[in-house]
Amino acid sequence: MARSVLTPQAQDFPRWYQDVVAKAELADNGPVRGTMVVRPYGYSIWERMQADMDARIKAAGARNAYFPLFIPQSYLTREAEHVEGFSPELAVVTHAGGKQLEEPVVVRPTSETVIGEYLAKWTQSYRDLPLLLNQWANVVRWELRPRVFLRTSEFLWQEGHTAHATEQDARAYAARIHEQVYAPFMREMLAMPVVLGRKTARERFAGAVNTLALESMMRDGKALQMGTSHELGQNFARAFDITYLSEQGRQELCWTTSWGTSTRMLGGLIMAHGDDAGLRVPPRLAPVQALVTVVKDGEGVPAAARQVLDDLAAAGVRAELDDRTDTPFGRRAVDAELKGFPVRVEVGPRDLAEGSVTVVRRIAGGKAPVALGAVVDTVVAALDEDHRALYDEALAHRDGRTHDVGTLDEAREAAATGWARMPWADLGPEGEARLAESGVTVRCLTMPDGTVPPADDTPGALAVVGRAY
Amino acid sequence: MARSVLTPQAQDFPRWYQDVVAKAELADNGPVRGTMVVRPYGYSIWERMQADMDARIKAAGARNAYFPLFIPQSYLTREAEHVEGFSPELAVVTHAGGKQLEEPVVVRPTSETVIGEYLAKWTQSYRDLPLLLNQWANVVRWELRPRVFLRTSEFLWQEGHTAHATEQDARAYAARIHEQVYAPFMREMLAMPVVLGRKTARERFAGAVNTLALESMMRDGKALQMGTSHELGQNFARAFDITYLSEQGRQELCWTTSWGTSTRMLGGLIMAHGDDAGLRVPPRLAPVQALVTVVKDGEGVPAAARQVLDDLAAAGVRAELDDRTDTPFGRRAVDAELKGFPVRVEVGPRDLAEGSVTVVRRIAGGKAPVALGAVVDTVVAALDEDHRALYDEALAHRDGRTHDVGTLDEAREAAATGWARMPWADLGPEGEARLAESGVTVRCLTMPDGTVPPADDTPGALAVVGRAY
Repeated sequence: MARSVLTPQAQDFPRWYQDVVAKAELADNGPVRGTMVVRPYGYSIWERMQADMDARIKAAGARNAYFPLFIPQSYLTREAEHVEGFSPELAVVTHAGGKQLEEPVVVRPTSETVIGEYLAKWTQSYRDLPLLLNQWANVVRWELRPRVFLRTSEFLWQEGHTAHATEQDARAYAARIHEQVYAPFMREMLAMPVVLGRKTARERFAGAVNTLALESMMRDGKALQMGTSHELGQNFARAFDITYLSEQGRQELCWTTSWGTSTRMLGGLIMAHGDDAGLRVPPRLAPVQALVTVVKDGEGVPAAARQVLDDLAAAGVRAELDDRTDTPFGRRAVDAELKGFPVRVEVGPRDLAEGSVTVVRRIAGGKAPVALGAVVDTVVAALDEDHRALYDEALAHRDGRTHDVGTLDEAREAAATGWARMPWADLGPEGEARLAESGVTVRCLTMPDGTVPPADDTPGALAVVGRAY
Repeated sequence: MARSVLTPQAQDFPRWYQDVVAKAELADNGPVRGTMVVRPYGYSIWERMQADMDARIKAAGARNAYFPLFIPQSYLTREAEHVEGFSPELAVVTHAGGKQLEEPVVVRPTSETVIGEYLAKWTQSYRDLPLLLNQWANVVRWELRPRVFLRTSEFLWQEGHTAHATEQDARAYAARIHEQVYAPFMREMLAMPVVLGRKTARERFAGAVNTLALESMMRDGKALQMGTSHELGQNFARAFDITYLSEQGRQELCWTTSWGTSTRMLGGLIMAHGDDAGLRVPPRLAPVQALVTVVKDGEGVPAAARQVLDDLAAAGVRAELDDRTDTPFGRRAVDAELKGFPVRVEVGPRDLAEGSVTVVRRIAGGKAPVALGAVVDTVVAALDEDHRALYDEALAHRDGRTHDVGTLDEAREAAATGWARMPWADLGPEGEARLAESGVTVRCLTMPDGTVPPADDTPGALAVVGRAY
């Protein structure tokens, strides 16, 4: 029934995406080109992502801090690849406090440089290492072709920055974030399957020696990079003089990492799970897991609805009441489908006369009367099942659209509807460059068993190839 | 014993403040003048403030959202007083994406204008009202005389913005935030007594018709404004065309409010409670309520320390272990005092041989052996008592330094060490202007019973007068 309010995915996927963002009240365009307004419902999903991710990051030993928005322009130029990578995207403040600044300041596109300056101050001895920091912040990268959540001139993210005594430590920590923080978060909270791999030299972060990425397939077959974790080698340590006194009394350069995930994940969530009726929010993530809807007023209806709400809350379900009976029921149902609340419990006079309510499942689908006494168990079981159902559906979709290929032409063909997999030994940087001419990129290199190859040229490494957001 | 590492308060209070900020590892100056780096320990206190404040704001019905950092310059000019108030402090982006912008954009100094634009879109009918929004964000106000946490070019805050159908509703909501969200937060979490009052016309927010403030006395007798809640009348509604269709079918202008608290509260916390040994963090706020310190290694010591830690955690105490026995005990004790952890539990071989540990209280003072089996109860009771002790101490300090006066000279004299209270009917705008010449300001107008006068000229209103940060 909600189908009429959105452009169908099959007809025009980008349009469908814009429709969902607007009609589910997730976000709006900001007044300055490329910026966005995250509306309360969209933000409530982001807050749930933040809280869970933050706990995982803290469990990995990192502590939150906050570094300034403004970075002296000179900092950016200290690491050559970094400045080259970011220069075209920088926003520059030239005037402040009523006059022209002596040195213009850059609005952070990422904080490696400014954090590098402080890592240098704080890492004096081997006892200070590893130094594990994270920050939640806004960053700015000027976008010429903005799209809400996916590419915006300003976005929200967490960026981790760490300093280590040895290359092995830094490498292990970047991998730990990749495999033990980001990947489980995406699977367990977002119900999204992710391919873990390493980026090719062409796709690496500006200044990194290795970029680990998590790639997810959207419902149109394109890839979205959901997060990255970088080994920065000693590049930033050298540029910012991040050194420490070793146990042997020698001054040594640190090894650093950085890693981030952003509001982009909201775009991924929409495009991985949404359907023609709107968003479908995975139950563990959902700010509202169960919407208790008063169908229409009637004797005992408000009290029964309130009781169901209280019972669900007591069982730990995030439940909300919709008793706006002055708005037509159909419109409210469409709105709930658009917003993708996993379960609706409809309380109306007719069902209630028979001691039941109607439970509607957004993810698995279906609508059935449930006796009042069984509502809580039914909802709890549905939420549990539907996390799995959503994950399995996304996985089946991805696997169904991923093809092992042997030639560039086959890779291009597979990328029209999904991903290709091809031995990196066969593709190589030259094949990669040729694919790029038609907008097809190597998303990452991965091993057949799903592990991350330790190097680009690890025998057996597969290139996952596709079109990407 | 920690006294030697800080400049004593009595000798040089501003210097003491800087010392605490640096030595308790709360913050650092940023590389761009006036900006700050909030270090992990400082940020962990801010996170606790955020979490508690956020829950109170949500309980008051507001929902979080996120609006852009960049605001078109033209927005600022739409409300005449607002632009006049903020122009000297604005940071302006003139270049982005590699070229000069057609219209420069301003880095938000506050978000009334950009949020006004969206309130106008979202408030269509009386059913959409009240619309209650809050955001956690960074804002920029260029500072010529910066001081960490108190006046920084960039700071973190929450800013609430609401739209209402009637003046009464808006007024009541601004008062609700002031009296039922901010004041209890400051008393219950920060252990800080606050005077609630209204600002005089001279001290009002740029664009407000009424500004409600919470003023707290620091240990040097100066005032710090800890938060404000503004009635904006219809000023922004008129400037941004925030209208709604009334139940009677008429297009009406909304009434709006805004309200905020910021990282400035960290400065207030330091200066309200700190002593010559460092910070003292109120127990309910403290990220670390009890530091379990291994005095030195010995048989059974690590296991006993771990047990105490686990027992405290199981009782809901935020406890942390300090087992860095390769750092001298004295230095670690000084550090713990600097950081102001409310309680330390020292576990060492000598006490342990007698089945006890030593409990050291940072707030009430004192150090006593406690039998292992009684540690949890002792710590829980100490945390409970010490919140009250800290509050009472601050209250006694404030009351002892507040004097009722009848003349401007007396007011100036009282302001040298604390606050003066003087009937506003006697002081008036002219007296206020004369006091301002010597840096003494009217912090707020309040009634003798502590309530907020409904108007500046309410009979009996008292002006609270002092020097302020």
